[in-house]
Amino acid sequence: MVDTGRAAILLAARRAFALQPYAAVTLRGIAADAGVSASLIVKHFGSKELLFDAVADFSTAATQLLDAPNDQLGRHAVLTLVRSRRRHNSDLLLRVVFAAGSGDERALLRERFRDQVISQVAERLQGQTKDLRAELFAAQLLGLGAVMAIDKQGPAATATPEQIADLYAPALQSLVNP
Amino acid sequence: MVDTGRAAILLAARRAFALQPYAAVTLRGIAADAGVSASLIVKHFGSKELLFDAVADFSTAATQLLDAPNDQLGRHAVLTLVRSRRRHNSDLLLRVVFAAGSGDERALLRERFRDQVISQVAERLQGQTKDLRAELFAAQLLGLGAVMAIDKQGPAATATPEQIADLYAPALQSLVNP
Repeated sequence: MVDTGRAAILLAARRAFALQPYAAVTLRGIAADAGVSASLIVKHFGSKELLFDAVADFSTAATQLLDAPNDQLGRHAVLTLVRSRRRHNSDLLLRVVFAAGSGDERALLRERFRDQVISQVAERLQGQTKDLRAELFAAQLLGLGAVMAIDKQGPAATATPEQIADLYAPALQSLVNP
Repeated sequence: MVDTGRAAILLAARRAFALQPYAAVTLRGIAADAGVSASLIVKHFGSKELLFDAVADFSTAATQLLDAPNDQLGRHAVLTLVRSRRRHNSDLLLRVVFAAGSGDERALLRERFRDQVISQVAERLQGQTKDLRAELFAAQLLGLGAVMAIDKQGPAATATPEQIADLYAPALQSLVNP
């Protein structure tokens, strides 16, 4: 299960880089958390620097979340976020919130989020308020990810993706086409 | 400036309890972060246990956010969240997201959030989906807090509370009265 190992490493790395200063993070610690050997991390990611780069990258998440025409973007993004969490027990975007503290590497995570997520949404919108609306679109997704993370047996964590989309997606869509 | 000291202590305590296991948190560390003496913390809060209790309490936040009739609840909650952040450079709810990890004290924070925020919203709603809608209402607020925290010079951090409410509050309101 090489793929499982990779996913477990990424999850453990996200946790480690979110909760500790960059300098304090060790491949050994991440390996222990992921239940793999440090050498498997090197095999998959090369080095701590490259592993951090993988953690700090939101481009794949953005591609998945935004892979729909504008008139279906809200619903597609909500369904994708919820289904991805159900499948991988992990959120596509939420790690950026844990990077709200100080430190260069946290700043990089936030910068990437702005460039790779918020700006990608803004580019697809029209009108004077498009930058604000793009950020609020991202806010909706972060908030949804947050409640699923903090209330793991709660209604949002157990409702079907379609039920959530029915109630939640119109808000995102109204930011796309106000 | 006793009040400033209290606020600074609470902010530092929120950070400390969010990022470290309960046992690792010290009043001395919080005092250093807050720029006050450990004895001032004892004077204000009594003990580490009581300080954590203050950090884990969302009842004041909920009272402020939900202090409006149902037909104005969405706009009131958004305006209150944004104004409070502008005034105190701190979010009324966001610390619960940092409590997504393991540990008894994090579980308490999440439990209080469910009891003091989500359940309070649910009690005011009607219909079969009210628990899910209450959680999504909280999601909207957490997401808004998150983008203001991660993009401190960005559009949501610099727009007026009214501009944000115009674009964002209808989504919350639609969960109150679907």
